[in-house]
Amino acid sequence: MKIAVAGAGSMGSRFGWQLKHSGADVTLIDSWDKNVEAVRTNGVTAVINGKKENEKMPIYNTNAVADINGNFDLVIIFTKCMGLEKMLKDIQPILSDNTYVMCLLNGLGHEDIIKKYVSEDHIILGVTMLASQMMGPGEIKFEGGGDVEVQGLVGSHKDDIMRIVDVMDKAGLNSKYSSKVKYSIWRKACVNGSMNPTTALLETNNVGFGQSADAKKIVAEIVKEFADVAEHEGIDLDRKEVLNHVLETFSVPHFPSMYQDLVKNHRLTEIDFINGAVARKGDKYGISTPYCHLITELIHCKEKVNNCK
Amino acid sequence: MKIAVAGAGSMGSRFGWQLKHSGADVTLIDSWDKNVEAVRTNGVTAVINGKKENEKMPIYNTNAVADINGNFDLVIIFTKCMGLEKMLKDIQPILSDNTYVMCLLNGLGHEDIIKKYVSEDHIILGVTMLASQMMGPGEIKFEGGGDVEVQGLVGSHKDDIMRIVDVMDKAGLNSKYSSKVKYSIWRKACVNGSMNPTTALLETNNVGFGQSADAKKIVAEIVKEFADVAEHEGIDLDRKEVLNHVLETFSVPHFPSMYQDLVKNHRLTEIDFINGAVARKGDKYGISTPYCHLITELIHCKEKVNNCK
Repeated sequence: MKIAVAGAGSMGSRFGWQLKHSGADVTLIDSWDKNVEAVRTNGVTAVINGKKENEKMPIYNTNAVADINGNFDLVIIFTKCMGLEKMLKDIQPILSDNTYVMCLLNGLGHEDIIKKYVSEDHIILGVTMLASQMMGPGEIKFEGGGDVEVQGLVGSHKDDIMRIVDVMDKAGLNSKYSSKVKYSIWRKACVNGSMNPTTALLETNNVGFGQSADAKKIVAEIVKEFADVAEHEGIDLDRKEVLNHVLETFSVPHFPSMYQDLVKNHRLTEIDFINGAVARKGDKYGISTPYCHLITELIHCKEKVNNCK
Repeated sequence: MKIAVAGAGSMGSRFGWQLKHSGADVTLIDSWDKNVEAVRTNGVTAVINGKKENEKMPIYNTNAVADINGNFDLVIIFTKCMGLEKMLKDIQPILSDNTYVMCLLNGLGHEDIIKKYVSEDHIILGVTMLASQMMGPGEIKFEGGGDVEVQGLVGSHKDDIMRIVDVMDKAGLNSKYSSKVKYSIWRKACVNGSMNPTTALLETNNVGFGQSADAKKIVAEIVKEFADVAEHEGIDLDRKEVLNHVLETFSVPHFPSMYQDLVKNHRLTEIDFINGAVARKGDKYGISTPYCHLITELIHCKEKVNNCK
C-alpha cells in the first residue's frame, strides 16, 4: 500500500515509522526544513522503550510536493489543526480520485475543510489515543497503549477502508473500523476541551488542575456545552459516562499538548478547533456555550501575553 | 476625633498615618506580629514621593483589643475581605453605640456582614481610589491621586458622617459625602471584577491583558453580568460609561492586587467577594452569570496550584 503522511511531527513520524517498519511504502511530507534534512540523512529515529531504531523513507518539503511520483492509496494528515487547510492545498498534486484522505486530528469540524478538497466518499475520519513526542529534528519517542478508530465520512467504500485499517493494525497501530467514529471524536473532544485549555491557563498538569473542587464544576459545564452542541448535530453523548471519563484523567500527571504549545513552546494553540468550535457552533444553533466562549477568549489573551507565533 | 484603624496593612497604615499626621487621635489594630512590633518601635514609616516620615501612634494586636481604652468615634476597617468578619468580632470591645464603622473594602456585600455586628445607622460604606503599598513591617509607600467617597448605609446621621468626612478630607484623604455610594461601589467592582482575576490568571498587567481583541469581549461580558445583578438590587449602572471606564484601564501598566496576592505572594484572593459575589447573587436572583462563575472557579483552581494560604 502506497501511503503518504502529510505532516511529520511527533504523530506523523510515528505513524510513518510504524507503517514503514511493517513493510508499507511510506512517503513523508513536512514543512520544517531541519526535520526534512534530518530524516533525509538518517531516516526517522524512533526511541521505543529506551531503544533507538531508524527507518529510512523518502521525505519531501511541502513546497516540493509536485516532485513526488506515484499514485497514493492513502494520505494521513497530521498537521496542527490550523495547518490542515494549507496542507490540503499543498498536497493537491498527489491526490487522485482513488486516494483516501484520513484525518485523525484532535478537535471538531475538520470534515468541513477536507470536503472542499476531497470527495466525501474518500474522506476517512478517525480518532486516536496513541501518543508520541518530538525529541528534535528527525527523532521521536513513543511507547505504551492507545488505539486508532476510523470510519468513512459517508459510510461507503467500507471494504477499501477495512483494507487500510488492516495495514495500520498490522503495523502495530492497534486500529479498528468504527461504526460511530463521530461519537468517539466528540467524546475525545470533551477530554481535550476540558483538560487542554485549563492546564494551559493554570500552567499545571491534569493532577494539578484536578486538586481543586472547582475543577469538577468547570469540567461538568464544559462537557454539558459540548454535549448540547453534539446533540444538535445528532450525536447523543452519554453525558454521565463522558463526564466520568474526563474526570478520570485527573489522576494522570499528564501535560496536555496545549500546555506544551502555549506555556512551553509559545506557539499558537488549537483552541479555535476545540472549545472555539463548540462556541461557534453553539452561536449558530442558538445554544448557550459561555464556558467555551470565555475559555477560548482567555487562551487567545494568553497567546498574546506569551507572544505565541 | 478618636479613630481606630482595624487592619494596618498598606491602606490602613496610610489612612492611620495621614489622619495622625493631621492631628487626629489614631489607634491601629493589626494581627501581623512583626508589623505591630515595628510600628510600636518606630511608628508608621511612610515613603511619600521618595521622602520618609514617621508617625508614632498606639498599635494593638487583634488578640489584645480588650486592652484598648476609650470611646471611639470611628473605626475604619481595612482588612482583606475574607478577614472582615473576624475583625468585626475581634473589635467588639471598642464598639459603643456611638461608634461609626466605616468599610472601604473592594468587593460587594460587606454590609450584610457588618450589619450582624453594628447597628445599620452607624455603618458607613465607601469606596476609595487611593492606593498604597506595603514595603515591609511598619513601612508603606504612597503617592498620587485618588479620593474617598462615603455614605451612611441607611442615609441617616448625615451631620455626624459629614464631620467624619471633614476630618478625613483635612487629612489629605480627598474625601466627600456621596449621595450614591452603592453606585460607586458597583462601578469600582466592575473594574476589579474585570481586571483583577484576568491579570492574575494570565500573569500579566492591565496592558498585557488588554493587547488581545478578546480582552474586550471578556470585559464586556463581565460588566454585563455585574450590571444585570446590580439592576436587580436597584442600582442602574450606566453600562456604556462603566464599560468604557474599565476599558480605559487597559492603558495603565498596573498589576492589580489579585495578581499580587495570587501570583507574587501566593495568598488566597478576594475573588469570592467580587466575581464570586456576583455569581452567588445571580444564582439567587435567577440571573445568568457564567463568566463570573468560571472566572471564580479558575481563580480557586489557581489558588490550589500556587499553594496559596
